[in-house]
Amino acid sequence: MTNKAEQLSVLFASHLENYQLVLAKRLPTSLYAPCIYILSLGGKRVRPLLALAGAELFGASPEVALDSALAVELFHNFSLIHDDILDNAPLRRGQPTVHEKWGRDTAILSGDVMMVQSVRVLESYSSLAYYHLSQLLNKTATEVCEGQQWDMDFEKNDSVTVDAYIQMIAAKTAVLLGCSLQMGAICANASCDNQLALYEFGLNVGIAFQLNDDLLDAFPGEGFGKQPGGDILADKKTFLLLKARALAEGEAERTLEACLAGKWNGSEKIDKVTAIYRELGVDMLCSQLADEYTAKAFKSLDSIDVPDANKDFLRGYAKHLLHRQV
Amino acid sequence: MTNKAEQLSVLFASHLENYQLVLAKRLPTSLYAPCIYILSLGGKRVRPLLALAGAELFGASPEVALDSALAVELFHNFSLIHDDILDNAPLRRGQPTVHEKWGRDTAILSGDVMMVQSVRVLESYSSLAYYHLSQLLNKTATEVCEGQQWDMDFEKNDSVTVDAYIQMIAAKTAVLLGCSLQMGAICANASCDNQLALYEFGLNVGIAFQLNDDLLDAFPGEGFGKQPGGDILADKKTFLLLKARALAEGEAERTLEACLAGKWNGSEKIDKVTAIYRELGVDMLCSQLADEYTAKAFKSLDSIDVPDANKDFLRGYAKHLLHRQV
Repeated sequence: MTNKAEQLSVLFASHLENYQLVLAKRLPTSLYAPCIYILSLGGKRVRPLLALAGAELFGASPEVALDSALAVELFHNFSLIHDDILDNAPLRRGQPTVHEKWGRDTAILSGDVMMVQSVRVLESYSSLAYYHLSQLLNKTATEVCEGQQWDMDFEKNDSVTVDAYIQMIAAKTAVLLGCSLQMGAICANASCDNQLALYEFGLNVGIAFQLNDDLLDAFPGEGFGKQPGGDILADKKTFLLLKARALAEGEAERTLEACLAGKWNGSEKIDKVTAIYRELGVDMLCSQLADEYTAKAFKSLDSIDVPDANKDFLRGYAKHLLHRQV
Repeated sequence: MTNKAEQLSVLFASHLENYQLVLAKRLPTSLYAPCIYILSLGGKRVRPLLALAGAELFGASPEVALDSALAVELFHNFSLIHDDILDNAPLRRGQPTVHEKWGRDTAILSGDVMMVQSVRVLESYSSLAYYHLSQLLNKTATEVCEGQQWDMDFEKNDSVTVDAYIQMIAAKTAVLLGCSLQMGAICANASCDNQLALYEFGLNVGIAFQLNDDLLDAFPGEGFGKQPGGDILADKKTFLLLKARALAEGEAERTLEACLAGKWNGSEKIDKVTAIYRELGVDMLCSQLADEYTAKAFKSLDSIDVPDANKDFLRGYAKHLLHRQV
């Protein structure tokens, strides 16, 4: 992490803390305590940091984007509360999820109220900036809901294409990165062309990030914290699995289908599947595709009409994201 | 129903139908079909009608408020989807609820996406009008979530005061009536004072309406469609029950507590409880309080600075609401 990322993180952390104090005064406590709780579970705060950096890219002070940064973090945390219900997840960052701690009903309602607050914190901007910021956030929110539904639909669908998968991960996670950056750009009064180029940068970094994430699950590098092979054990339709099913023939196809039919479990299943992935070269294909999206992202960043030195931080931060998990 | 109400209903129905066609083109269908479904279950469309009437009160064409009317109806239907999950309700208007038909997860997500759309349909307005409209809708949305949580909290709380109850019904249902009217007024460029007076009218009509609803559950008039005594059988903390518990002494208190402890069931329980309500006069107190809120509402309408004839429709429509169920 660079010094700049540290600075922006500290700036945002203090803004978020003040907002949590505001929420702590609201009633009923039973509705707002879960909001404060999930915000306090931490995280790398990637989205708010992108919003602040998006403003700074255009020479503005990051402070102008603080409420936009708060908006995207609130929206992200709303989606975590509801997604955890959908996934029946007991834990988030090692702590009980909101629905585990307060029950399903309060988790639904606290999520709802947090989504509304994500737009309300934008009311500090001028009416014109508010119009653009909340329009972008609501478009993105719509896509995130759509992406989440696609993801659920894919679980029951045996003919998901790689293209549909990319569209799903774009909607479910990458658009919010683009949105965060563009909101920062809006706060800095950037031109429409520059705003859109920055959005494209975030979107493509997000897709590359997700493809990397798929790869790291099957082939974890050193110091990778997540339980490796989780996607394989859950038969999750990642790029690797979809591509492998499209390419596998003969023995490889039979073994892969037997894996999906539950013939092997645990590390044996992981070993069989990763061997097929390597044999078919889908790990390389995934890595190549991630590189293509990364190249597209950097080309988009290059096209933005500001001094090149302004882009150093985002370039470095994107590289950092694409090599480490957040 | 007056001719005017009929006209406004037809105008809104056609606008809503067009919007449902827009939703029908969006993907994934699995996300939007539940939205289209719940919107097609009908209802009296009280809130959109108030939005249209709110604009007309100030001499504007009701057409200017069509997207505001759509916004409040979308928001209302979002809240129905999520509330039905909270209530484990199998039916709405005699049809399966969204979570019954599509499952809990899709019901959560379809509700989420519909809430976002309720603000997005306001994007057709100028940036300044959008700023005011969405700010009001989001403030109201926050209160509705709070009201719903208060309601859930009250179920487990044995010391709910009448004042807290009034605050809860105001937040849960009445604020959206005030909001609908004020949004219409904003579309008609009404002054702030006029806007607020119209909001107060809607808020107080809403509270009076809810008190009437409590009364009608225990003492249904002729032609009342709902199963009478439902609140009593469910030990629901209505105005009547809260006031009765506050006033009951001696034999009445013992009988009431025995009813709540489950000593009697069915019509026997309803008869015992309603007898106590009459004995203590809480039916009269409820009716008087509803009348006070009604008077406050009409006083607020009177104060609005437009020709008195413009107010005829809202006056008549409010009377209609306060004497019939919607």
